[in-house]
Amino acid sequence: MSFRAIEWRSEAGILRLIDQKVLPGETRYQELTRVEEVAEAIRDMTVRGAPAIGVAAAFGILMVSRGREGDDRRRALQSADALLRASRPTAVNLFWALDRLKAVWNRPEATGPEIEAEVLAIEAEDVAVNRAISKHALTLCPQEVTFFHHCNTGSLATVDLGTAPGVIRSAHEAGHKVMAYLDETRPRLQGAKLSSFELMQYGVPHAIVVDGASAHVMRTRKVDMAIVGCDRVAANGDTANKIGTYNLALAAQDNGVPFYVAAPMSTIDFDTPSGDDIEIEERDAGEITRIGDCEIAPPGAPAFNPAFDVTPNRLISGIITEYGIARAPFGESLAALRSEIGKAPV
Amino acid sequence: MSFRAIEWRSEAGILRLIDQKVLPGETRYQELTRVEEVAEAIRDMTVRGAPAIGVAAAFGILMVSRGREGDDRRRALQSADALLRASRPTAVNLFWALDRLKAVWNRPEATGPEIEAEVLAIEAEDVAVNRAISKHALTLCPQEVTFFHHCNTGSLATVDLGTAPGVIRSAHEAGHKVMAYLDETRPRLQGAKLSSFELMQYGVPHAIVVDGASAHVMRTRKVDMAIVGCDRVAANGDTANKIGTYNLALAAQDNGVPFYVAAPMSTIDFDTPSGDDIEIEERDAGEITRIGDCEIAPPGAPAFNPAFDVTPNRLISGIITEYGIARAPFGESLAALRSEIGKAPV
Repeated sequence: MSFRAIEWRSEAGILRLIDQKVLPGETRYQELTRVEEVAEAIRDMTVRGAPAIGVAAAFGILMVSRGREGDDRRRALQSADALLRASRPTAVNLFWALDRLKAVWNRPEATGPEIEAEVLAIEAEDVAVNRAISKHALTLCPQEVTFFHHCNTGSLATVDLGTAPGVIRSAHEAGHKVMAYLDETRPRLQGAKLSSFELMQYGVPHAIVVDGASAHVMRTRKVDMAIVGCDRVAANGDTANKIGTYNLALAAQDNGVPFYVAAPMSTIDFDTPSGDDIEIEERDAGEITRIGDCEIAPPGAPAFNPAFDVTPNRLISGIITEYGIARAPFGESLAALRSEIGKAPV
Repeated sequence: MSFRAIEWRSEAGILRLIDQKVLPGETRYQELTRVEEVAEAIRDMTVRGAPAIGVAAAFGILMVSRGREGDDRRRALQSADALLRASRPTAVNLFWALDRLKAVWNRPEATGPEIEAEVLAIEAEDVAVNRAISKHALTLCPQEVTFFHHCNTGSLATVDLGTAPGVIRSAHEAGHKVMAYLDETRPRLQGAKLSSFELMQYGVPHAIVVDGASAHVMRTRKVDMAIVGCDRVAANGDTANKIGTYNLALAAQDNGVPFYVAAPMSTIDFDTPSGDDIEIEERDAGEITRIGDCEIAPPGAPAFNPAFDVTPNRLISGIITEYGIARAPFGESLAALRSEIGKAPV
């Protein structure tokens, strides 16, 4: 299979996104030409996954930049920047990409081609970064390897390979004998819908399990490592990721299974000292009480829907970045990797 | 509210069950007159919850016993007994009720009224046992108390009050200020569908959460105790309950929240030394990949669906029975409570 969740059609100025809300039942594309549409696609999770969100936002900036000059462009980009920042408050890549672009467009002497080159660099680097993460992760994999994954940070979450499912796919393509257990990942079921869809395309043996089954699976079957992506990693290694990640890390710890986070350096937020400082988005209760057209709870039943949780660094065996694997104490090892930022991934 | 999930209409010989498969969308009853129907209702989870299953099976025996005598009755009851035992292999109450009845009907001199009296005693004792469990549990509850519950072992899982939600309801009725978080309990969503339905009837404040949220909720909100029912407790205290219970116990341990099991003595299987000896039922993968009419995974996606898990005794703060609360070392404390069996609950 070869598909891209995000594709920029430069001449037409169209951002083409797979609509992840309707996968795997339907493969439908959205073609966006306005930044307001990009912000809405981020908000309603047509596009999801921290890296993909950052890249989509970058193309939103490009849509506004094109055809404008000088102060007019700067004013328009200021609005676009604010609109995009409000679309998904937990996704640090979003802010990372927007900050990086702002450093270019906010200079009075900035040119259109410069801004465009920075947007395309963000896209190209995402591909290179994920390949490097997989390369480092493969050093941890035995020949026969069973993974446990939560949520989806694969091809659909990035421009190309993906972080954690990128590792699973890379191990499969490198000739390892691979099995993967996938948490279905309630409430939005990204594991059942998206990760399973991806692994089926690549022919990787796997099984979907309910989120509550992870400890039982690890207790009764061989699992070599749990591996997840992340939305944001604090400077001390505490990791915000899809709700249920902290539970998975506890299941891994109790069963002696190493727990790894695959994290581009862009998701590491050195300005956030610890997980306690990460704001957790709360989403609509209807995501829990309704699945498709099916009401699963009594009418009016109350639900609480935090979208993310924070896995404490003490539960994490390593954080796999494009520059290598950080290990405890994470404050020091992440800071050491920080000095590599700007260099090509190794 | 006052309803009974199980009601025996003696004159007509009808067992009336709330069909728990269609709750909370519909309140539909099944009226059963043949033991084959009872076995099917247990198998397809029209009736569920360990105590309710035991009582339903007892009435299945009564259906066959009535109108038969002597060897003819004994042969018919042997078949009925085997049929019922095969309907749900993990539910120890099923075997407990059937063993207890067999000890009566298998004697050559057994009379129909004797058999009927034993069936009715099993039903009456379930009510008394749950009241006693709630009484002991209330000694653990502060005035303001927040519970965390997994699955459903309430009114719908028993003849009347229920075990763990019975405690929540009893605390509410005794004037405690109660809040309850309910795991939705995938795949069959007994928490979202049944526990929420019950607590809404009683007016108990609560919130449904996805199963992966428990550790996050306990980390960020006040939770005083996790409390669950069980399908089977081994002699050493290891507890088999709905898949996801082991994960919830890990979330509780990591956050210093006491974890209690509410267990009638009939669910304690002194013949099973530890959780490793408990057979775990695996159910159809379609329970995971389909919710209502909604396919949530790609066509043909593989899924693994263990129905139960085993929570190791080291994660359990106490096992609340009708005779008091067992604590570690559970082998000794459960054995001490065993000597009370046969006495009235205290």
